[in-house]
Amino acid sequence: MNYKKQKNSVEIICIGSELLLGNILNSNARWIAEELAALALPHYRQMVLGDNIDRLKSAILEASERCEILITTGGLGPTQDDITTISIASAFNSKLKERKDILLDIKNKLGFNGNIAENNYKQALLPIDAEILPNKNGTAPGMIWSPKENFTIITFPGVPSELKQMWTDSALPWLKRNKNSESILLSKTLRFTGIRESNLAEKLDILLQSKNPTIAPYASLGEVKLRITAKANSKEEANNLISPMILKILETTKSKCFSVNNESLPEVIINLLQRRCESISIAESCSGGLLGSSLTSVVGASSVFLGGIISYSNKLKTNLLGVPVKLIENNGAVSQSVAEAMAIGIRNETSSDWSIAITGIAGPTGGSSEKPIGLVYISIIGPKNFVDTKPYKFNPRRSRQEIQRLSVLKALDEFRLFLLATS
Amino acid sequence: MNYKKQKNSVEIICIGSELLLGNILNSNARWIAEELAALALPHYRQMVLGDNIDRLKSAILEASERCEILITTGGLGPTQDDITTISIASAFNSKLKERKDILLDIKNKLGFNGNIAENNYKQALLPIDAEILPNKNGTAPGMIWSPKENFTIITFPGVPSELKQMWTDSALPWLKRNKNSESILLSKTLRFTGIRESNLAEKLDILLQSKNPTIAPYASLGEVKLRITAKANSKEEANNLISPMILKILETTKSKCFSVNNESLPEVIINLLQRRCESISIAESCSGGLLGSSLTSVVGASSVFLGGIISYSNKLKTNLLGVPVKLIENNGAVSQSVAEAMAIGIRNETSSDWSIAITGIAGPTGGSSEKPIGLVYISIIGPKNFVDTKPYKFNPRRSRQEIQRLSVLKALDEFRLFLLATS
Repeated sequence: MNYKKQKNSVEIICIGSELLLGNILNSNARWIAEELAALALPHYRQMVLGDNIDRLKSAILEASERCEILITTGGLGPTQDDITTISIASAFNSKLKERKDILLDIKNKLGFNGNIAENNYKQALLPIDAEILPNKNGTAPGMIWSPKENFTIITFPGVPSELKQMWTDSALPWLKRNKNSESILLSKTLRFTGIRESNLAEKLDILLQSKNPTIAPYASLGEVKLRITAKANSKEEANNLISPMILKILETTKSKCFSVNNESLPEVIINLLQRRCESISIAESCSGGLLGSSLTSVVGASSVFLGGIISYSNKLKTNLLGVPVKLIENNGAVSQSVAEAMAIGIRNETSSDWSIAITGIAGPTGGSSEKPIGLVYISIIGPKNFVDTKPYKFNPRRSRQEIQRLSVLKALDEFRLFLLATS
Repeated sequence: MNYKKQKNSVEIICIGSELLLGNILNSNARWIAEELAALALPHYRQMVLGDNIDRLKSAILEASERCEILITTGGLGPTQDDITTISIASAFNSKLKERKDILLDIKNKLGFNGNIAENNYKQALLPIDAEILPNKNGTAPGMIWSPKENFTIITFPGVPSELKQMWTDSALPWLKRNKNSESILLSKTLRFTGIRESNLAEKLDILLQSKNPTIAPYASLGEVKLRITAKANSKEEANNLISPMILKILETTKSKCFSVNNESLPEVIINLLQRRCESISIAESCSGGLLGSSLTSVVGASSVFLGGIISYSNKLKTNLLGVPVKLIENNGAVSQSVAEAMAIGIRNETSSDWSIAITGIAGPTGGSSEKPIGLVYISIIGPKNFVDTKPYKFNPRRSRQEIQRLSVLKALDEFRLFLLATS
C-alpha cells in the first residue's frame, strides 16, 4: 500500500525493551501526542520498538515513507543498549561525528576535570549535519536531523522530565517555526476535587457533547480534570470559544472547581494565602509529612508556610503540641478532640494565622470496628475563633499511600473552601 | 528490509484516536506486554493507530509479514468509529457473517426483548471462519482468526477490565495450547543510588553483554535500577542463572546497591531499623516534610519512626529544636552547625536512637554566590556519640521539587551506609 505523505504529519517511535516487556507505561507517547494535538499537527501512528538496531532501522525507514516528522524517545543514554542515534544514522547511511560542545557539556555536568567515562563519549556522536537538541537536565542531548527531503527526525531521551524540558525549550519553537499549521488548538484545564468523574459527567451531560470546543474528562486519585480544547484561526478566536464554556461549567459545578488554570491544589492554597497575607502551620499524624511536602513543593511557599510537626508518636503530640495525655487516653489519638488540640497546639507554637491538623488510620493495620482503616479527622483553626473539625471515611480497601494522599487533598480542599467563604 | 518470521512472535496494535490525541495512557499495551513476557513469547513491536480503515489495513498487512500472532485492542464497539473487525476482514478479502449466538448474547446483556439498536448488529459480524472470543462483561466480543498460514489475529475491546477477563478466560488458554513455549522468564530488580547510570554501566561492562540472564539498566531521578532476566525451563533453573549474576554485580558495586529485591530506599531503612530495634526522628527545613512522608509511606513505619519537625521558619528552629538564635545569625540557617543543632534538637526532644536533619536551598530563589541553590546540609546523629554532618551540592538548574527529592534520597542513603557500617 502506498501512502501519500500528509503535510506536517508526525509519527512517534518510543524505543526501549522495558516498554516491550511491559515494565513501564508509555507516558512519553501520551505526553507528546497531547502536545501534537495542541499544535493541530496530524498524528496517525505510534510505534514501540526494543533495543535492536536492525528492527529499529527498518521501522525508521518505513516511517520516513509515511510522515514528514518522526519523533523518537529513548535509547540516547550512555549504555550499550542505547542504540537510537546509531540506528538512525545507519538507516540513512550517514557517518557520526564527535561534537566537542556536547563533550564539554557532559564534562561540566558530571563535574569532572579529567576523563569522562568511555560510555559517555557515545553521547557526543551525532550525524554530520544534525542539529543538537540541548538537554539542560541530563547528559543525553537529542538532535533535529533531516536525512532526506520532507523528512525530519527529532530525538529525545526517555527520561520524562528531560524530554519535557527539551520539548519546551527547543523542539516546540522549531515545530512552530517550521511546521506552522493554519489553525491552532488551544486548551484550558479545569481541575476539580470532591466530585466523582461519573457525577461530573452527568451534571455536564449536554456540554460534554460540544464539538468545538471539545471537553475531555480525566480522573486521577481524588481529582478530575476537564480539558477544554478549541480549534480556531487565532488565539483570540479560540479564547472566545472557550471562555463562555468555562462559565457554563462553573455555573453547574461551582466551588467543586478549584482551578481554571491547571494549578495544583497546593498552588491554589499558597496563592490564596499570599494574597491575604496570612500564614499557616500544620500538625500531621497519619499523613506523616505529606501535607507539609505538598505545600512546600510550591515555589514561594516559605512566604506563608511557617512549618509543622509530624507528631507520629503520642509522646510528640503531648510534648510538642501540648495535647493533654488524658485527652489521648480518653478519646484515642484518632479523635475529634485530639485533632483539634493538635491544630490549636501548632497554631499557638507558631503564631500562624491558620493551622491544619490531620490524624487518622492509614492502614493496612491499626483499624478497629469502632475506628476503621480510612477514618481520618481533619481540624482547621483560623482567625476570629474559626474552628472546624470533621471526620472523613476513606475506602479502607485503598492502600496506605492512597489514604494519605486523599487525606491531604481533603484537608487542602476544606481549607480552600473556608478561605473562599471568609474572603 | 525482509524479516524472517520468528516462531511465536507477537505484535500488538492498539486502535483508537483517543490514544493518538494523548487523551489516555496506553495501559492495555503495557498489560499485554507483561503477559507476553511471562509467557516468554517474543514481542518486538507495538503500534497505535486511529480509527481509519485504510491506515489500519495497511498496518495489519505489514504486521502479518513480520509476526505469527497479532493482538489488537479497541475498535470493537457499536459506534461508527469502531472499525477494527471490518478493517481486518478487508485486509484479507474476507466476508463478514452475522453470528446468531452473538446477537442473542447482546440482546440478553442489554435486556431487550425486541429489536436491538442498529449499531449493535455490527458487533455480531465476524469473518466467516473466525472463532468467537467471548466477552462476559460487555457487548463487544473479540475473535481468534487465522487469515493465512502462520498468522493469527486475536482481537480485544479497549476497555481494560473486559480485555483482562477475556485474556484470562480464553486467549491465555489458547496461547498456551497453540503457542506453547517451553521456557519461562524470571526477573529480579536491583536498585542503586549514589552512582550514575553511565558509571554503573562502565563498572559492569562485560556483565551487561550477558545473553542469559540479560541485564537492563533504567535510570530515574537519583536512582538506577538493574533488571536481571533469565530464560529457563523452570523457576529453579532461572534462579540458578540469576543468583551468581547478582553476586558478581554486588562484588563490583558493593554498597551502592541498596536493594536486591526491588525495595524502595525508605522500605530498606524501615526494615533495617526494625531489625535493630532502633528508632528515628527527623528535622526538615528545605525538604519541607518529604523525608517524613517518604518514611511514613512505608507499611509499619510507626514501629520505628517517632516523628519530626518541619522547621521551615527560623523561629521554629529556635523554639522547637533549640537551635540558638546566635548560631543562625552567625552561620545562617543553611549551615553545617545549624543542621547539626537541628538533628541534636529533635533527637533530644524525642529520645530517638537516630535523627536526621536537612537544611538547604531548594530554589528557585534564595541562592547567593556563597550559598548557591542546590546547597544542602545533612546531619545524622546516632548512638555512641555518632555525628556526621556534610554539605551536598545538587545541580542548581534542577527544579525545586527535584532538589527536595535528591536531598531526601541522599539523606536516606547516607543513613543506610552508617547503619550498615555499625551493624
